[in-house]
Amino acid sequence: MNIQPVDFSGVYAANALQNLRNTAPLVHCLTNDVVQSFTANVLLAVGASPAMVVDPTEAAQFATIADALLVNVGTLTLPHADAIRAAVQAANRAGKPWVLDPVAVGGLTLRTEFCLELIKLRPAAIRGNASEILALSGMSASGRGVDSGDNALSALPAARLLAKQTGAIVAVTGDVDYVTEGERCLAVSGGDALMTRVVGTGCALSAVVAAFVALPGDRLENVAAACRVMSCAGELACQQTRGPGSFIPAFLDNLYLLDQEALA
Amino acid sequence: MNIQPVDFSGVYAANALQNLRNTAPLVHCLTNDVVQSFTANVLLAVGASPAMVVDPTEAAQFATIADALLVNVGTLTLPHADAIRAAVQAANRAGKPWVLDPVAVGGLTLRTEFCLELIKLRPAAIRGNASEILALSGMSASGRGVDSGDNALSALPAARLLAKQTGAIVAVTGDVDYVTEGERCLAVSGGDALMTRVVGTGCALSAVVAAFVALPGDRLENVAAACRVMSCAGELACQQTRGPGSFIPAFLDNLYLLDQEALA
Amino acid sequence: MNIQPVDFSGVYAANALQNLRNTAPLVHCLTNDVVQSFTANVLLAVGASPAMVVDPTEAAQFATIADALLVNVGTLTLPHADAIRAAVQAANRAGKPWVLDPVAVGGLTLRTEFCLELIKLRPAAIRGNASEILALSGMSASGRGVDSGDNALSALPAARLLAKQTGAIVAVTGDVDYVTEGERCLAVSGGDALMTRVVGTGCALSAVVAAFVALPGDRLENVAAACRVMSCAGELACQQTRGPGSFIPAFLDNLYLLDQEALA
Repeated sequence: MNIQPVDFSGVYAANALQNLRNTAPLVHCLTNDVVQSFTANVLLAVGASPAMVVDPTEAAQFATIADALLVNVGTLTLPHADAIRAAVQAANRAGKPWVLDPVAVGGLTLRTEFCLELIKLRPAAIRGNASEILALSGMSASGRGVDSGDNALSALPAARLLAKQTGAIVAVTGDVDYVTEGERCLAVSGGDALMTRVVGTGCALSAVVAAFVALPGDRLENVAAACRVMSCAGELACQQTRGPGSFIPAFLDNLYLLDQEALA
Repeated sequence: MNIQPVDFSGVYAANALQNLRNTAPLVHCLTNDVVQSFTANVLLAVGASPAMVVDPTEAAQFATIADALLVNVGTLTLPHADAIRAAVQAANRAGKPWVLDPVAVGGLTLRTEFCLELIKLRPAAIRGNASEILALSGMSASGRGVDSGDNALSALPAARLLAKQTGAIVAVTGDVDYVTEGERCLAVSGGDALMTRVVGTGCALSAVVAAFVALPGDRLENVAAACRVMSCAGELACQQTRGPGSFIPAFLDNLYLLDQEALA
Repeated sequence: MNIQPVDFSGVYAANALQNLRNTAPLVHCLTNDVVQSFTANVLLAVGASPAMVVDPTEAAQFATIADALLVNVGTLTLPHADAIRAAVQAANRAGKPWVLDPVAVGGLTLRTEFCLELIKLRPAAIRGNASEILALSGMSASGRGVDSGDNALSALPAARLLAKQTGAIVAVTGDVDYVTEGERCLAVSGGDALMTRVVGTGCALSAVVAAFVALPGDRLENVAAACRVMSCAGELACQQTRGPGSFIPAFLDNLYLLDQEALA
């Protein structure tokens, strides 16, 4: 029988964020074309160092220098797949953690087959919405692109299965985020529906997960801390703004200014 | 003899926008590298769902799932051209409308030949500035990149000719936008010169046109509604800001908050 | 013996900016995937005209039409390298100046070899941080991606050497920017540490350098003017904002509104 989800502690998140700011992990991002700038700005605001190095041979070189690798298949092409393979293999050889964001997996053949190949290569974490986690676990697929038609809680059994299959921490995100290693599960609240009206909030969260899995400490809690940092900054930004346009600068400012008090 | 342009009705625009928000059309964007994030944020703010799927085989799969397809040749390469061809053919087979933004057509060989190939494939709409519409119709070309040296009204005969040649609704945009199906022509006012100091406002308009051509009703009026929604939000944003930087968040907020009163 | 750096005159910067706004140079940008939109918006805000044309044959055509070319190797791939080679050769044949931003050169093989090839092709200017200029001159390399671990002043001997080797104006940027043609050297102050928490400020500066090298007058002073315009707008924006998110729109607004008084 599975253990019930436990509310995640804001104190842990605050300590992990302090740790991240002290060490500024270098995150190698192989992400989609749409969110590159926003992803880099989110990582910079939170205190990490982003770098996008995309040529296959350079990606393999850089994966050994970086502290963590993000793989996002949102605008996958065959050349990108080559760079991702090379970077993941190099990261694994160098003992560097890597994170998978399986954008819109399920309905489209190339990315679905590629993600099924990638999850055999020991990702440290996988972050997706409910329909993506359902599709990747083999339990279901809704497949209307990046918008999840499913509820995060409904995908928790799939997240647990996927964690057991792959050895990864799996985060299924939505109104509440659930982070699991198979048995243990943390529930992270916060955020706001307005965040779904801004492109790249989910993709940027996966990049922040990559930054946090580079930290020492309990990896399950570190992934939950990434989710909490983003949901907390998002919630604050929504209180300060009137639409998705002003949300973006406010969100980055809040990530930059986020302190222990806000997180706890 | 051609019918004189008629001022477009704000009431129709308001109803079309409500219709769009109720149905949230899924817009498949094959657009240029520079404006991907802004285009996605504009579509989300207005109430549509963007998705960028760029591998040729996936693009063909996705074109049949999406409600409309946007093709923009701003940073065309040979691999992108393959993806565009595959997506357009799949959209046509599935009966889904597609929109062409012929960025900087006229002066550069690859995109000019490709756009002349594309307009034979029955686009539902074509959106460009005066020099692009002149070049595409065969009537002229100024060719200093994306900035139009010509006036929209001066390109109206070219727009009418292009509409008759292709069967598409043609929107030639500038200080005033003119939308024509060959005979009938609607004039859409609004906007502000500051919008030309922000990259991607024209490209994003073409994506919004794709969202509106997915709606039922008169296609000529739907394309005009897309132009009016953008010019209205742009005008409001310019009144609220002091430069092109603060224009961007204000524009997205206004798109998100736009109501019947503002449009009428 | 080298001449000591001289403080750059704000009056020259103001005149050069006015000249740029009057002529609106068309800048052909072959830059990295992460900063395309920000780069275009910076060029538009400052008064130049950006255009991204990336296919090798079109890039060669467009390099002869544009007033200057920017080459940035941040997300270099082999196809991008082909387009860059074609554009640089065409620009040289047409007598158009081009600028190199050697992002993260030193640690990664493909871009390092490619940049060493490029600097033989007579760039008008090279803009990099200390570690990039050290690496490119052959004097050193730190190589932790885009963040420079070195101080701009410490790289001034390398900048002078590189200027003499290549014939380019070399700008090594940091807390203070140093711009040299080998002997003469101008020091440009201003800016703020917050600018390093926003992706693309350095890359956009290189694009603005390309716009300024298209102007008549002393090229050394024109490159320094580009640095001063950016550091002045950045400083003003930092005074008006509370974090990196609100910095971005404020920075673009300040570039757009910058006047003689602020620069002097």
